[in-house]
Amino acid sequence: MYRNAKNVGYYMIGKGALAQLGDLLTTRREAQDGPAVFFLDHYFEGKGLADRLPVENQDMVLYVDTTEEPTTDSVDGYTARAKEFLGGKMPCALLAFGGGSTLDTCKCVGNLLTNPGKAEDYQGWELVKHPAPYKIAVPTLSGTGSETSRTGIICNEAKNLKLGMNSDYTMFDQVLLDPDLTASVPRNQYFYTGIDTYMHCFESLSGSYRNVVVDSLAEKAIDICKRVFLSDDMMSDENRELMMIASFLGGMAAGFVGVVHPVSAGLSMVLHMPHGLANCHALSVLEDIYPTEYRDFMAMIERQGIDLPKGICQGLSDAQYTALYEASIVHEKPLINRLGPDFKKILTKDNVIGRFKNM
Amino acid sequence: MYRNAKNVGYYMIGKGALAQLGDLLTTRREAQDGPAVFFLDHYFEGKGLADRLPVENQDMVLYVDTTEEPTTDSVDGYTARAKEFLGGKMPCALLAFGGGSTLDTCKCVGNLLTNPGKAEDYQGWELVKHPAPYKIAVPTLSGTGSETSRTGIICNEAKNLKLGMNSDYTMFDQVLLDPDLTASVPRNQYFYTGIDTYMHCFESLSGSYRNVVVDSLAEKAIDICKRVFLSDDMMSDENRELMMIASFLGGMAAGFVGVVHPVSAGLSMVLHMPHGLANCHALSVLEDIYPTEYRDFMAMIERQGIDLPKGICQGLSDAQYTALYEASIVHEKPLINRLGPDFKKILTKDNVIGRFKNM
Repeated sequence: MYRNAKNVGYYMIGKGALAQLGDLLTTRREAQDGPAVFFLDHYFEGKGLADRLPVENQDMVLYVDTTEEPTTDSVDGYTARAKEFLGGKMPCALLAFGGGSTLDTCKCVGNLLTNPGKAEDYQGWELVKHPAPYKIAVPTLSGTGSETSRTGIICNEAKNLKLGMNSDYTMFDQVLLDPDLTASVPRNQYFYTGIDTYMHCFESLSGSYRNVVVDSLAEKAIDICKRVFLSDDMMSDENRELMMIASFLGGMAAGFVGVVHPVSAGLSMVLHMPHGLANCHALSVLEDIYPTEYRDFMAMIERQGIDLPKGICQGLSDAQYTALYEASIVHEKPLINRLGPDFKKILTKDNVIGRFKNM
Repeated sequence: MYRNAKNVGYYMIGKGALAQLGDLLTTRREAQDGPAVFFLDHYFEGKGLADRLPVENQDMVLYVDTTEEPTTDSVDGYTARAKEFLGGKMPCALLAFGGGSTLDTCKCVGNLLTNPGKAEDYQGWELVKHPAPYKIAVPTLSGTGSETSRTGIICNEAKNLKLGMNSDYTMFDQVLLDPDLTASVPRNQYFYTGIDTYMHCFESLSGSYRNVVVDSLAEKAIDICKRVFLSDDMMSDENRELMMIASFLGGMAAGFVGVVHPVSAGLSMVLHMPHGLANCHALSVLEDIYPTEYRDFMAMIERQGIDLPKGICQGLSDAQYTALYEASIVHEKPLINRLGPDFKKILTKDNVIGRFKNM
C-alpha cells in the first residue's frame, strides 16, 4: 500500500508578496460567510504587523504565546477562545503568521473547530475525521516546514509526549512566502529554525523508510541549506528567499526522522526548549551516529557565528534525567528508522543520559 | 504581482501502485454521480490494459490516437464524443493513461466539458472560466511533465500555432505514478520523452523569467535526468522510478522555456513530429546557444545508444521552410526569455531555415 500524498493547494512567493494577501482573503470571504481568525506570534504584539494585514471589523486577532512550544493545553485554550468568538459560525479562513509554533497552533485549532473533543484525542496518525476550515500560512521564520507538512506538533505534558496531529486535514490550503518577513529575525533564532530543515531532511535520507519523491525533495532542501549556511551571510536577501524554499520543500519531505528529533523532543518536553535550538543541542552529541552531518553542522555554526551554549543539562535531578531519557526513547519509529529494531542496545539509559550531560 | 501557483492535489508513487487506482476511483464515484471516462493511448488497444483498470458498465473508454500531436480539431472531436456519451451528465472523473498527448487531450476535453465553445477559444493564458471535472493522470511515459503542469498543449492547424490551454483548471487533481507502466516502452521513445524534462528545465534555468521555487525544482529534475541518462541503463527499475519523479518535478517547474521549444514547435506543426523527438532535433542544431547542454545531450544519446536520424528536413519546399520558420519565430516570449528582445537579429529567416536544413 502506497500513501496518497497531499500537496499544499497553492503557494505564492516573492519579496513583498504580503501585499497580495488581501486579494487571497477576499476570494475566501466571497466563498464562505464568516469572520477570519488571525493567529499571530505574540512577538508581533504592538509591532504593527496586524495593521498591515487585511483584518476587518468582524475578524479575530489571536496572539499565540510562543515562549514555549504548543501543548495540548495551549491548543485547547486557543480553541475555546476561537469557538467563543465565532459563536457557532464557521470562519472563512484561519491565517497564521509566525514560525512553527504559531503555524502548528493554527493547524491544530483548525482541526478542533470541526472535530469534537480535545487536542490529545488527535495526537497520532489519521485520527482527524472532518475537514478543517480553510487555512493560510504566512511563515515569518523559515525552517520548520510546518507550512507544507501534514502534522501539527504539540507537547502533551501529562503524558510526557511530543507528537503531532498527522492528517491531510492538518495541511494548509494556501501558503504565502514573503522573504521580507524574515529580515528582522535575530541571527541565532534564524539559524536554529533554518537548520531544522537540514536536520529533518538528512535524518530522512539516512533512514530506512524512504521513497524517491521524498528523497528528491530532501536532497534539494539539503543542497539549499548548505548553500545558505556555508555562505558569507545566511541572511542576505537572496539567502532568506532560498531558505523559504528549503523550508517549503523540506516540509513536503517531512515524515521519517531519525535520532536527532527524539533527543530534541526530550529537551522540549523536559526543559521546554524551542525545537530548533533543541535540534542543535541534539546533533552536538550525535557525532558517532551522524559524523558527516555533525561536521557540516559545526562548520555552519562557525561560519555564521552562532552561539550554542554549553552545559545546558548540568545539575539536573535524577528524575529529570530519567524524564529526558524516557521522552526521547519513546519515539521508537524514528529510532528504528536510523538504528534498526535493536536501537535500545545502543541507546541504553546510561548512554542517553550521558549524551544529555555532554550538551 | 506574483502568481499564485497551484499544486497537483494528490500524488501516489510506487511499483505496482496501479492496483490502488480502484480505491481512488471509488472515492470519486461516492462523491459525484456519473460515469468515469477513461482516455487511453491507442497504443493500448487490444493490449489488455483496459481489463486491468476499474472500468464499470456505465463508463466510457476512449482511445486517443497519438500518431500525431493533439490538435484543436482532435480535441473538439473527442469532446463531442464524450458529451454525446455523457448525455448531459457530469462525469465522476476523467482518467488519462499515456504520455503527454493523451494526458493533454484529457486535460483539454475536461475544460470543454464545463466551458462553452471550441478548443481554440482557450489557447492562451487564463481563458478557462469554469472548473473542469475531477481528473486523474496515470502516466505510462515519463518526461512531458503534463501530469503536474497547468497547460494542455494543442496544435492549431489553421493558425499554424502550437499553444496550450494555460489554466489552473487544466491541472490534474490526482496523479498516480507506477514505474511498472514504463517497463515496456521502446528505448528510443523512452529517451525522446524523458529528455523533454531535461530540455524544458534547462531552458527555464537559462532564461531571464525565473523564480526560486521553479529554479529549485528544475535543478533537481536536471540532476535526476543526468543521473538516469548518463547511467549504464536508463531503463533499470530504479531509473524508471526516478524518471517519473523528474517528470513530476519538471512539470511543476514548467513555464518559461527558451529556444528549443519554439524550434521544436515548428517541427511539430509542419512535419507533425512528436514533441520529444522534435526537441532532440532542435537541440541538435543549437550548440551555439546551449553549448553545455548540447554536449551533455550528445553524451546521453551516445551512452544510451539512441537513434537520431539525420536529414529530416532535406528536400522540403520553400513554402515548407517558410512555414517552419514562422511556426518557430511566433513564440516570442520564450525566444525573448533566452535571447532578449532583439532575438530576430540572431534568428533571421535565413539563420533559422539553415538550422532546419542542418538537422
